[in-house]
Amino acid sequence: MKIMVLGGDGFCGWPIVLHMSARGHEVMIVDNLARRKADEELKAGSLTPICSLPDRLNAWHEITERRIQWFDLDVARDYDGLLDLIESQQPDAIVHLAEQRSAPYSMKSPRHKRYTVENNVSATHNTLCAIVESGLDIHLVHIGTMGVYGYGSGGGTLIPEGYLTVEVPTSDGIGRVAKEIRHPTDPGSIYHMTKCLDQDLFHYYNKNDQIRITDLHQGVVWGTNTEDTLRDERLINRFDYDGDYGTVLNRFLMQSAVGHPLTVHGTGGQTRAFIHIQDTVRCLALALENPPEHGERVRIFNQMTETHRVADLAKMIADMTGCKIEYVDNPRNEAPQNELPATAKNLQSMGLTPTLLESGLMKEVIDIAQRYGDHYDPDRIPCRSQWKASKTDASAGIGS
Amino acid sequence: MKIMVLGGDGFCGWPIVLHMSARGHEVMIVDNLARRKADEELKAGSLTPICSLPDRLNAWHEITERRIQWFDLDVARDYDGLLDLIESQQPDAIVHLAEQRSAPYSMKSPRHKRYTVENNVSATHNTLCAIVESGLDIHLVHIGTMGVYGYGSGGGTLIPEGYLTVEVPTSDGIGRVAKEIRHPTDPGSIYHMTKCLDQDLFHYYNKNDQIRITDLHQGVVWGTNTEDTLRDERLINRFDYDGDYGTVLNRFLMQSAVGHPLTVHGTGGQTRAFIHIQDTVRCLALALENPPEHGERVRIFNQMTETHRVADLAKMIADMTGCKIEYVDNPRNEAPQNELPATAKNLQSMGLTPTLLESGLMKEVIDIAQRYGDHYDPDRIPCRSQWKASKTDASAGIGS
Repeated sequence: MKIMVLGGDGFCGWPIVLHMSARGHEVMIVDNLARRKADEELKAGSLTPICSLPDRLNAWHEITERRIQWFDLDVARDYDGLLDLIESQQPDAIVHLAEQRSAPYSMKSPRHKRYTVENNVSATHNTLCAIVESGLDIHLVHIGTMGVYGYGSGGGTLIPEGYLTVEVPTSDGIGRVAKEIRHPTDPGSIYHMTKCLDQDLFHYYNKNDQIRITDLHQGVVWGTNTEDTLRDERLINRFDYDGDYGTVLNRFLMQSAVGHPLTVHGTGGQTRAFIHIQDTVRCLALALENPPEHGERVRIFNQMTETHRVADLAKMIADMTGCKIEYVDNPRNEAPQNELPATAKNLQSMGLTPTLLESGLMKEVIDIAQRYGDHYDPDRIPCRSQWKASKTDASAGIGS
Repeated sequence: MKIMVLGGDGFCGWPIVLHMSARGHEVMIVDNLARRKADEELKAGSLTPICSLPDRLNAWHEITERRIQWFDLDVARDYDGLLDLIESQQPDAIVHLAEQRSAPYSMKSPRHKRYTVENNVSATHNTLCAIVESGLDIHLVHIGTMGVYGYGSGGGTLIPEGYLTVEVPTSDGIGRVAKEIRHPTDPGSIYHMTKCLDQDLFHYYNKNDQIRITDLHQGVVWGTNTEDTLRDERLINRFDYDGDYGTVLNRFLMQSAVGHPLTVHGTGGQTRAFIHIQDTVRCLALALENPPEHGERVRIFNQMTETHRVADLAKMIADMTGCKIEYVDNPRNEAPQNELPATAKNLQSMGLTPTLLESGLMKEVIDIAQRYGDHYDPDRIPCRSQWKASKTDASAGIGS
């Protein structure tokens, strides 16, 4: 299969690229290195020493004799370039990860809000529009977030995989009839909102132009490396622990490795869904190798393997490592605690066997502490984005 | 009240500006004349001889001694200019009409699709973002479309005013619990889709930043002038009859006036909601003068006064004028016929007494035929946009 990965240099993109190449597929990367530029802007960076993209690709070739091409192109701004590339390369599938993916980053300032909306909407729309214009039968795979449904205080409803059968009033205003709808969205940040906008775009292009689309609603990713990125130091994946791009569990791992108290936002009663980066990669392979039928509606799978309360995670790591827990103000505008009952049967029925926190966690802590613990910058840990203008500066972020 | 009208030179914007000025409010226009530029691009134009915006404003001043300021600014692209303007003018309300509003135009080509998405999303997001950044308590009033819910073949469900109480599964997967959701969207064109994206943006900014928002889901507007635009020839409103911007009823009126057969798409079984431009203006005044409470969710009102099947409308006009009806291929990708049971109680309960088709129609036909019938260009009537690449060129558009 010929696969084009938009955003193939990023945290999820890079391991996906390697995994699909290792499985014998022809993979190419489209990436304008926006994520590396955000590192420069934020004066933060990956804890792990990631190589330049050309060096990564050369290393992969050296080890596997497999070539991966890179096209330096801004998907959101260079529509003609994207269309030319799709027409000349004729991919069977496009994996779309060319989006700004941090909730705190999206809330930093009006400029960051506007960048996130304009970049993410245009990247998604340009990709859909170019697929239609090319006339090619391309399967689009996208990573969204389970956060599109909001992390409200609940009411005990189950988050299904995209769709929901409900009863709605009939035109006489008296009767009710069953109807299948997309699960209503209720995003908690500008970033999450853009993933809701993506869903609208997917729904429309699937209906009007029969584009085959798989939208993977992912939980919070933890872990760093996959079996492929571990094959050579030059292939190492990025590890973010800063207040903008570091996700909650990776931030806890880093804090425990350097002996910093684990900073929990608010009560820590927030429940989140989690998945290990190795499973992200496996899920993508399952999605790519099992495309929707022609005429099928947008496939929406929940891509997560377990849910935990943030405070419970902190306790689990504190118990393993002996580090302390510190409760700080929550910069987010969210319920102090919530449930997150969700189903994620589709990917597991397709063959996914999850890497669970229980077994993988200690290994990650030790690896990171031993190898990179002395490289971190404590100033990068706090989340300085505020969801509400009136809130005071909080001292730590939990990631998405 | 101080009111800023984004898109105040357009078909709905101009009569709204005059109406609010006539009611004693301080009104200002923000408009980059995008609609007039589309006339040049399409080599079409208003049937009625509209004056330049400065001439319009001078005429209004001459007649009423009231001043209306105009700021030439692209809301979608000049965020800093928009923010400066909001901060310096401190409006109480912003009426947001700065969007590309034609469904056929949005489907003309990939360039038109991309322009419609990028313009409409950025115009809405910039406005919301600037209101938050200004820190001012501004009521935002927007005109959306009843088309966000799709014109599907039905199932006989009632289109409510934005919200819907449904029963959803509980987390045990067995029980069901009532939950109020936004009515699910199912747009039929790129243009309609952008109005769904707007809804997501409104929902988020209302929730996170407590922006007070009224979103008026409008039906197809018919008619040309209002009591204000009739006060002087120089104040005349635009009248579009071309395949892109002409709405179905105005196109029929034009066709009957010049003796052209009324071109009905497909079976004509499509049901649409309608409202006269004079009522659009009255509805906006009701919305502006009755803003939502602080903390109220987004207000969504259906802004329509009656629904009709397209074929019935054609017959009504044919009976009045003796002209013929011609059935042509439907360029749209839609059900051949549909019901559109909808409620629109909110605006009527606020005092709207509608101008119904029955009474107003004949007057419009005669006015247009007598005054401007000899100015029209028959080449502009066909809708040349195709919803599907594979469809053959259709010979007429119904607008919406």
